[in-house]
Amino acid sequence: MESGYGKSDQTFLRNYNIRKVRTILREEGPCSRVDLSVKANLDKKTITNIINEMLKNGEVEVVSKSSNGAGRPKENLALNGEYSRCIGLDIGGTHITGVVLDFTGKVLCEHNIDVVNNDSDILFQLCDLVMEELLEKSKLSIDEIDKIGIAFPGHIDIRTGRTVLSENIQGWDDLPILDIFTEKYGKEVMANDCSRLMALAELRYGAGNDERNIIVFDLGLGIGCGIVINRKIFPGSTGMSGEVGHTIVKVDGSRCTCGRNGCIEALASGWALSKQAMDLLKNNESPMLSKTINKNTMIPTTKEIVLAAKLGDDKCIQLLKNAGRYVAIGIINSISIINPSKVIIGGRLIRDNDIFYDEMIKTVKKDAIPELIKDMKIEVSALGDLATAIGAATQCFEEFFEYE
Amino acid sequence: MESGYGKSDQTFLRNYNIRKVRTILREEGPCSRVDLSVKANLDKKTITNIINEMLKNGEVEVVSKSSNGAGRPKENLALNGEYSRCIGLDIGGTHITGVVLDFTGKVLCEHNIDVVNNDSDILFQLCDLVMEELLEKSKLSIDEIDKIGIAFPGHIDIRTGRTVLSENIQGWDDLPILDIFTEKYGKEVMANDCSRLMALAELRYGAGNDERNIIVFDLGLGIGCGIVINRKIFPGSTGMSGEVGHTIVKVDGSRCTCGRNGCIEALASGWALSKQAMDLLKNNESPMLSKTINKNTMIPTTKEIVLAAKLGDDKCIQLLKNAGRYVAIGIINSISIINPSKVIIGGRLIRDNDIFYDEMIKTVKKDAIPELIKDMKIEVSALGDLATAIGAATQCFEEFFEYE
Repeated sequence: MESGYGKSDQTFLRNYNIRKVRTILREEGPCSRVDLSVKANLDKKTITNIINEMLKNGEVEVVSKSSNGAGRPKENLALNGEYSRCIGLDIGGTHITGVVLDFTGKVLCEHNIDVVNNDSDILFQLCDLVMEELLEKSKLSIDEIDKIGIAFPGHIDIRTGRTVLSENIQGWDDLPILDIFTEKYGKEVMANDCSRLMALAELRYGAGNDERNIIVFDLGLGIGCGIVINRKIFPGSTGMSGEVGHTIVKVDGSRCTCGRNGCIEALASGWALSKQAMDLLKNNESPMLSKTINKNTMIPTTKEIVLAAKLGDDKCIQLLKNAGRYVAIGIINSISIINPSKVIIGGRLIRDNDIFYDEMIKTVKKDAIPELIKDMKIEVSALGDLATAIGAATQCFEEFFEYE
Repeated sequence: MESGYGKSDQTFLRNYNIRKVRTILREEGPCSRVDLSVKANLDKKTITNIINEMLKNGEVEVVSKSSNGAGRPKENLALNGEYSRCIGLDIGGTHITGVVLDFTGKVLCEHNIDVVNNDSDILFQLCDLVMEELLEKSKLSIDEIDKIGIAFPGHIDIRTGRTVLSENIQGWDDLPILDIFTEKYGKEVMANDCSRLMALAELRYGAGNDERNIIVFDLGLGIGCGIVINRKIFPGSTGMSGEVGHTIVKVDGSRCTCGRNGCIEALASGWALSKQAMDLLKNNESPMLSKTINKNTMIPTTKEIVLAAKLGDDKCIQLLKNAGRYVAIGIINSISIINPSKVIIGGRLIRDNDIFYDEMIKTVKKDAIPELIKDMKIEVSALGDLATAIGAATQCFEEFFEYE
């Protein structure tokens, strides 16, 4: 090897300390110089130098002054949102959701389009549309946007930069996604798996903000999870961690899109539910479902199955409960391996879907190893349907901060 | 919060750089000052200062001199084994294995006792015996030992310091293990789960030495795994990661010691195999096994089952193949979640057990997600039966080194 190590000289230390101060301002909100000195474990002179530089750059601003009567009033400092703004695009199998996020993590505006045809050409055009809407709503020009972050349902092989395992968008497998979007918008583009970016958003701005090790389960058309280890997203060795949807929980169970049997995704995902519900219709086992589905498509969506269940359809209730139980086993197994302090549940599958959700939580609490779940928290995503888009933008800011 | 951050001043930087230099010497073997400067990405003056201090401390020594003809010959430096020696004790359900390890990772001596009665009182006495043998073999006095590292089949709750989930040693649950051993030997004691320490040994000195993210599966009386993330052992949020033996792969499968059903440990561990083989005997289904077992105990061990299988007993062959298949699913599921660059297989269950091992590897290669396994390596533990004891001692040296 030449050197696996970065430089560790004065400049390294200085940059490290600047990132540390930014991170404290991000996590703690407005702080005085004295607060920062205590919290960063740095002497006052170092803090003064760093803050002077940050004020000059415009990345920090004085937001208030407080006085205890004697001496000079203390200035309270905070990150300045206008220092940088990034766009996050969450490209899913059924939607494209975009946000403009500022440097403080504030969502300046959002826009969503439901996707019915996820042909790759159409998706690119719909991305343009969402971009235009976001710029119009935020009254910003594209020049005022620093970077664009993409979330998509699949991985990028860290070594090749190409998409892998993006099963839920046809034609997006083995695509040089970074190059395509960089060329398209003339900006620096970052891209990552949607579940991982949902986890990043919850970690920095949502339900995972106080935790070091979390797993965020993204339940939708597909099923994945984002893993946070020591307050950082863990991508795995080639960028493909979090494939909990393709863990096997029922040897010789139903066939999965991946070609194997008994994966959770084949038993309990959005697409598996549709498939199971179609069987119910074919066998005339669910009279209520035949009334709640869209007659034009005849492919039951989760929403339609949930509606039939709420109207008392036993078969649909059973179908949702089974799915809840299988997802619970995926959660239990992940907890057994990783031992997180919190599990967060997000994604469109849990929206207005209490039958599924309650069964899932009940099973996790009943069947997880008691010692592992005793003090572990389980919560619903705090950022809801925007989580992944926020995560897509958040990845653009990660280099500015330092988590230990 | 007061401060979640450590000091990041000159002393911090200096100590960081010292650990960095030690780590390069550990990983790369003898280096000149010029080599170190390049590899550590530090200027020559800093390296000279650090090496002078290390020579003075006795932690580094000059091992050779090389000359290119002109100028002063280059001194090659290496860690000095005598700088620190630690004892590692691997306390299992069926054995106690000990090693004396020096600062360079060299095993100075080893000692093993097979345990037939794992009553906790007897275990403590057997530990004394192993300690005595180790000191005698190494010709060291207890004063020349710096720390003692313990590996045991269970976890320590990081928050309470007490043992948790140590199912395979009776009476060792909820024990203040650190306090007991510290008082017993009057030394600083470190303790951790046996599978995690097997992983640490393989990471620092074995089959995982070139990898950043690995999973080491420890197959024995119980089944666990040690997880390495970014070249560090990952203990989980309360010290209980790696419970792959208690992941569920067969909904409604056999009853496990943990009270749940379908865990891998209930289907494929050393104790599950014994149980399944006893059923074979009871039903007179395995004539060969009734000849290979110890008539005094009548409880078939893995060794006896393997022997019957090798002699052509179909039922025993099937039993080992099934176990291999279930462990494979645990490996596949762990790979799907974590995406390691290498999987290492260790533990006493694979010893001379090709029928089990080959079926397991065949299933992993066939049923893992192709994109995840394509470039992933699978290897047998390089340190064999000593791995866990070496890991137990290795944990005592971790604070001296720095991995990024």
